[in-house]
Amino acid sequence: MQLILVRHGESEWNKLNLFTGWTDVELSEAGRKEAIEAGQELKKRGIEFDVCFTSYLKRAIHTLNTILAETDREYLPVIKTWKLNERHYGALQGLNKAETAAKYGEEKVKIWRRSYDVPPPPLEETDERNPANQKMYAGVDKKDLPLTESLEITVQRVIPYFNEEIKPLLLAGKKVLIAAHGNSLRALIMYLEKLTKEEIIGVNLPTAVPLMYELDENMNVLSKEFIAADLAAVEAKMNKVANQGKASK
Amino acid sequence: MQLILVRHGESEWNKLNLFTGWTDVELSEAGRKEAIEAGQELKKRGIEFDVCFTSYLKRAIHTLNTILAETDREYLPVIKTWKLNERHYGALQGLNKAETAAKYGEEKVKIWRRSYDVPPPPLEETDERNPANQKMYAGVDKKDLPLTESLEITVQRVIPYFNEEIKPLLLAGKKVLIAAHGNSLRALIMYLEKLTKEEIIGVNLPTAVPLMYELDENMNVLSKEFIAADLAAVEAKMNKVANQGKASK
Repeated sequence: MQLILVRHGESEWNKLNLFTGWTDVELSEAGRKEAIEAGQELKKRGIEFDVCFTSYLKRAIHTLNTILAETDREYLPVIKTWKLNERHYGALQGLNKAETAAKYGEEKVKIWRRSYDVPPPPLEETDERNPANQKMYAGVDKKDLPLTESLEITVQRVIPYFNEEIKPLLLAGKKVLIAAHGNSLRALIMYLEKLTKEEIIGVNLPTAVPLMYELDENMNVLSKEFIAADLAAVEAKMNKVANQGKASK
Repeated sequence: MQLILVRHGESEWNKLNLFTGWTDVELSEAGRKEAIEAGQELKKRGIEFDVCFTSYLKRAIHTLNTILAETDREYLPVIKTWKLNERHYGALQGLNKAETAAKYGEEKVKIWRRSYDVPPPPLEETDERNPANQKMYAGVDKKDLPLTESLEITVQRVIPYFNEEIKPLLLAGKKVLIAAHGNSLRALIMYLEKLTKEEIIGVNLPTAVPLMYELDENMNVLSKEFIAADLAAVEAKMNKVANQGKASK
């Protein structure tokens, strides 16, 4: 069974070093190029997939659309779900990472960013950024929508969705591609690779580099491979993501 | 109940005056602009929709993606189905309209283009353009896939799909947008407006101009409106489509 995970390309807010979370920002020009390269590499290697999942957020949807265009598979079914959205970053969304450290203290920001189970301060109920106040989530039961999330809370929405909606397709022989976000994909990686909460904290997924798993019917990982023309460049990208954390201290 | 029909923008092959049918050609630059304008006009008027349907063909999918981007509704569910594909044009696909007239005679081409129930010559079973030989249709029962179609045969696949998959959503209060093709949309227009086969032949849908219907629960048309900034330009577009038929005589 084959499962491909792709984190969206660089977004406009990654570039500005803002906490993004559920803010629906667009890919940057560099992010669009990354997505094109990802699609071209999948095509060059003849890697197949049959069904695609993505989040409600356009940086993931556009990454997927670009991959579908480059691989000439526009016709494939695409299922969009808020359950694959990025981790909700609460009241930090829209704040600059350095400013946040000045406001809340460096130590707290480090905890919110790197701990498994400590969520950042929640949005106010009345905040227009509260998903319950947004048209986009009108079809979702308000009680299911977060005001903030730790990675743990993200795991608690991603994994049941995976088990209910994606696993049955894999078991039926479908090759699945998921285009989503750093933390919703880390939730999946943690689950598939059976990582502890300490281990997942150290995992950084590079933007727009497809990660292909072969799985057995019990969802055990048989093999794992980054699909990229230049694996050294992927390594450098992962280090860059890891260093973003340090730069904001 | 509200239903919006949108024909895709101009394609690369519309421009070259080739019979397209199920050939999966891209929008032209002008077609992309038309789709952007359609999205902008829907947004400007605040016209809502909740669920989208499109075909397997990228000129329709890209028209829809553009409308979703312009209206900031990327997150909406999109259902892709070959049942909304363009009319299959059989062995004429890929031929220039003037060359076809020279090969088969003007009178025959006129009949294939403008009759309700006479299909063009079919593709050979072994033809690589036979949908049954294409990866894209691997999930479809081969016996359901056409080698050629009249408008009547197109109607026979579009209307049952509409009744089974789209009508229940309309009855449940969903506002539906369908981005598809000249003939699959004519099939729907014929059904909704209760046109005869003589009447539908005279109907030309302009490219990338949303046509919004209000319907009652028996699918009777209560109102019908083209969503365009310049209705005179829409009129001119419809005449252009009608004249394309004449130019190929």
